[in-house]
Amino acid sequence: MPERKPISFLSDFGLDDEFVGVVHGVIARIDPDLRVIDVTHGVDRGDVRDGALTLVRAIHYLPEGVALVVVDPGVGTDRRAVAIETPWGIFVGPDNGVLSPAVAIVGGAARAVSIEHPGFILPSPGATFDGRDRFGPAAAVLAGGQAVLDDLGPELDPGELMPLMLPLPQVGESSIDGEAWWIDVFGNVQLNSGPDDLHTAGFEQGDGIEVVVGPLKRNVPWVRSYGDVEPGAPLLHVDSAGMLALAVREGSAAESFVVRTGTRVVLRKP
Amino acid sequence: MPERKPISFLSDFGLDDEFVGVVHGVIARIDPDLRVIDVTHGVDRGDVRDGALTLVRAIHYLPEGVALVVVDPGVGTDRRAVAIETPWGIFVGPDNGVLSPAVAIVGGAARAVSIEHPGFILPSPGATFDGRDRFGPAAAVLAGGQAVLDDLGPELDPGELMPLMLPLPQVGESSIDGEAWWIDVFGNVQLNSGPDDLHTAGFEQGDGIEVVVGPLKRNVPWVRSYGDVEPGAPLLHVDSAGMLALAVREGSAAESFVVRTGTRVVLRKP
Amino acid sequence: MPERKPISFLSDFGLDDEFVGVVHGVIARIDPDLRVIDVTHGVDRGDVRDGALTLVRAIHYLPEGVALVVVDPGVGTDRRAVAIETPWGIFVGPDNGVLSPAVAIVGGAARAVSIEHPGFILPSPGATFDGRDRFGPAAAVLAGGQAVLDDLGPELDPGELMPLMLPLPQVGESSIDGEAWWIDVFGNVQLNSGPDDLHTAGFEQGDGIEVVVGPLKRNVPWVRSYGDVEPGAPLLHVDSAGMLALAVREGSAAESFVVRTGTRVVLRKP
Repeated sequence: MPERKPISFLSDFGLDDEFVGVVHGVIARIDPDLRVIDVTHGVDRGDVRDGALTLVRAIHYLPEGVALVVVDPGVGTDRRAVAIETPWGIFVGPDNGVLSPAVAIVGGAARAVSIEHPGFILPSPGATFDGRDRFGPAAAVLAGGQAVLDDLGPELDPGELMPLMLPLPQVGESSIDGEAWWIDVFGNVQLNSGPDDLHTAGFEQGDGIEVVVGPLKRNVPWVRSYGDVEPGAPLLHVDSAGMLALAVREGSAAESFVVRTGTRVVLRKP
Repeated sequence: MPERKPISFLSDFGLDDEFVGVVHGVIARIDPDLRVIDVTHGVDRGDVRDGALTLVRAIHYLPEGVALVVVDPGVGTDRRAVAIETPWGIFVGPDNGVLSPAVAIVGGAARAVSIEHPGFILPSPGATFDGRDRFGPAAAVLAGGQAVLDDLGPELDPGELMPLMLPLPQVGESSIDGEAWWIDVFGNVQLNSGPDDLHTAGFEQGDGIEVVVGPLKRNVPWVRSYGDVEPGAPLLHVDSAGMLALAVREGSAAESFVVRTGTRVVLRKP
Repeated sequence: MPERKPISFLSDFGLDDEFVGVVHGVIARIDPDLRVIDVTHGVDRGDVRDGALTLVRAIHYLPEGVALVVVDPGVGTDRRAVAIETPWGIFVGPDNGVLSPAVAIVGGAARAVSIEHPGFILPSPGATFDGRDRFGPAAAVLAGGQAVLDDLGPELDPGELMPLMLPLPQVGESSIDGEAWWIDVFGNVQLNSGPDDLHTAGFEQGDGIEVVVGPLKRNVPWVRSYGDVEPGAPLLHVDSAGMLALAVREGSAAESFVVRTGTRVVLRKP
């Protein structure tokens, strides 16, 4: 009996409908002893970049095994369904870029297949619900050892997998011109730059930095943690994912600075 | 030791409070090795029909065992609490119709009991929270084999179980007069008719069909899947539950057609 | 091999981000066989009192083991991270009062430690995410038997743990001057008084009681359950947590009486 591996399940299904539960049910019907961790199902609907970034933030904290990722605005088109073998384990999802950054971070694709073998795809009474009919079953048979990658379909050249373009900041002398790429539920604003970018631009922790968002300009200290400023005060810090983030202690930076995902944020010497 | 069966748990509790967690806790206290699948807890509050339709869509994908269903606007009245044996397994919930369509779909009630035996009901410090005190414990002892149906209370005539009336469409020549009976989180509008109704009315896949919602009339093609229309365009298709659905590729049909659950939707020859 | 204990996980993380999933992942990486019950992650953000009251309502229904509680507006400050041994099991969370009422209810703190030992704390690429880096790992090693309390850090005097002040009602002759301290998702309004307070004030079940909320005054019967009033009618009853609650049958008392958490509610003889 091969060892069972845990499945980490990430989607944009939300929890208001039965989609997530049905995928859990399908997995349990295939192998009742599999463990499934719900990473989150709150990815912005159809937002491949949000799904990809969420997976990147989470992947190092998930147990090695199978990542089942369904953020799939192209369902019902001819985009491929893929399973990708990596040093971390196997990634299962649509070939639309949502897997690519995480696959790269854990060491790259060793092998990949297109999930096509009808023996591992559930029949649908109508339109395909690929999470239920294709991705869920593939994840279950791979995690439980009922199948190996090659059983699922023809091999693909990993180089042909869809990449995902992520916006990079412009790092200049004394300035970084970037954007917000994640607003968490507390209103913390993660930027698309890290501490290295700040050092390249000539900033040091402890500096005051002018944050420019549209017409708003505000001097914000780069500190180590929330406790270094007063309640209600803004701060820049390296967040728990290792990225630069704009925050407000016991408040919401997204509200205070009127920032949404994708909003341009410029940092410069005051 | 009898074999443990999985519990599939569906409710309208939402996830903002501790109700769902407390029911999980009660089940784990009775038998820590039981598996519980959360189908969804996002059923519209107190909406028996929404709960029943959700269960119908999910049931064939859930592992056979025990279905624990708590959508119970009559809590605190004298509606019965029931456990129903079927070819699929056992359904536990209030006798208000929420179980009936799914019970019928899996082959009907073989036997039923009213859950009344105080030995399987938790005492409450106040009003009964039946999910916690009655339904959860009943599901746990049945799933874990600590009790059989007859242990829980007196047998009922399955014919006396509360049925649920579901609205049927009027299928005429060249027209179907029906309604929206589920809007999913992507804004897809499932109608109360299936492909058979369309064929009866004289439509074929590939036809353009006039969709009438209030004053709005729009010609929409009946296609196989999203990929058959352009992004942003509307479509009619047989959805993943086998029902006819109005959708917009990469958009929300509910918004585009101003449809809510229960809204009348007429399909006719253009 | 020590016996594994279940972890009951409560937080204000919400489910829109990957925070909850990442904590599950960290626990599974430490011990893949641990069971984790999600009590709720819908505690009002940063609201220590809401978290504490939720834990109090749930604790008697959770399997004995480890309670992992992360409602932590002081993350990044010098508030302590603690593990507290009680007759129920071990509570892990910030020392900000969120654990105190539940610890008291289950019999008090037998011993406590400050979670400081670096061997049980995950390194972070930036700011600490204590749920992921400190509380989750501590809960996992304690639940799985990989460590005992003393391994985690220096012992604390339980008397030094942060208490939580909960507002008590003023109980007079023929009146109770209190407040709403929980509004559930159905709109039921739990008050900070129980049946004993009502008896002290001279009320009996069956009485009509004048409920005063701001300028609104309404005569409401104290009954046993929803079934004792007509649909749409208000009622006072002892709720499933044993507290006095204002409710509306098949409706929302919070809307009907315009009550929020903390709103003053006076009960008096009509």
